[in-house]
Amino acid sequence: MSPKQRDATERLAPDECWELLDRTLVGRLAVIVGEHPEIFPVNYVVDQKTIVFRTGSGTKLWSTVRDQCALEIDGYEAGSASAWSVMVRGRAELVLDPGQQAAAGALHLDPWQPGDKNHYLRLTPESLTGRRFKTTRPDIWNTPDSDARTSTFH
Amino acid sequence: MSPKQRDATERLAPDECWELLDRTLVGRLAVIVGEHPEIFPVNYVVDQKTIVFRTGSGTKLWSTVRDQCALEIDGYEAGSASAWSVMVRGRAELVLDPGQQAAAGALHLDPWQPGDKNHYLRLTPESLTGRRFKTTRPDIWNTPDSDARTSTFH
Repeated sequence: MSPKQRDATERLAPDECWELLDRTLVGRLAVIVGEHPEIFPVNYVVDQKTIVFRTGSGTKLWSTVRDQCALEIDGYEAGSASAWSVMVRGRAELVLDPGQQAAAGALHLDPWQPGDKNHYLRLTPESLTGRRFKTTRPDIWNTPDSDARTSTFH
Repeated sequence: MSPKQRDATERLAPDECWELLDRTLVGRLAVIVGEHPEIFPVNYVVDQKTIVFRTGSGTKLWSTVRDQCALEIDGYEAGSASAWSVMVRGRAELVLDPGQQAAAGALHLDPWQPGDKNHYLRLTPESLTGRRFKTTRPDIWNTPDSDARTSTFH
């Protein structure tokens, strides 16, 4: 990587990572299942510098509780032609304390996917990293989640 | 999960998973680093039912080659108020054969991030899963990657 290219990647300060986490609604959660990673989109909220999300009783719940997990968010800023990504790593724990459960329930973390999501998990970061970089392919970031891209599936 | 809720989640056939992979440009790649998962956004192309992406010589390269990895894509279809996600799991291998390297180079897989990305990796799926579901929170999917959401960072 040349010095110029290195300069093009900016590390984000923790405060800015939290600000991006705060204003983003969906992240991708990676967990280890057996010996391989799996990824699930999840909606989450930030609560006192932890990540809280709901889940059912399946694979995602038990793997995240048992092992390390990672939540990643990313986005594109058209004004600066920059892409950014933030990753939180840590261990997620079931929220078991009734008081904490009630507090978690008040976070307006409505499930966006059908199915019972009775359990609250809290991911406390052991590592928080973020970066922003000028992208040479802004078209890539303009298309995801657009109606145009998925119009044939309507 | 009630029968009604179960019905609301549709499994996608492999052909539809491939079609979505084909028309998507950025995915999230999960790899195992040490004992924890990490996630990176990557741009990729589909080549003969494999996923090809470029990378540098750092963590991402060696972990994906050594261990299982997973690539996930997702999106939202406004017309049907449905969200979908597709996950490919498998092992990624370095493209070493000169003929295959030349073929990979012809895939127009331009890097979208600064830095040398000299290596081509090919992820051959061992598992391919996809699902689509009506979402109760379409607002979640309307905001990611929008300028509105990140406007304070311009």
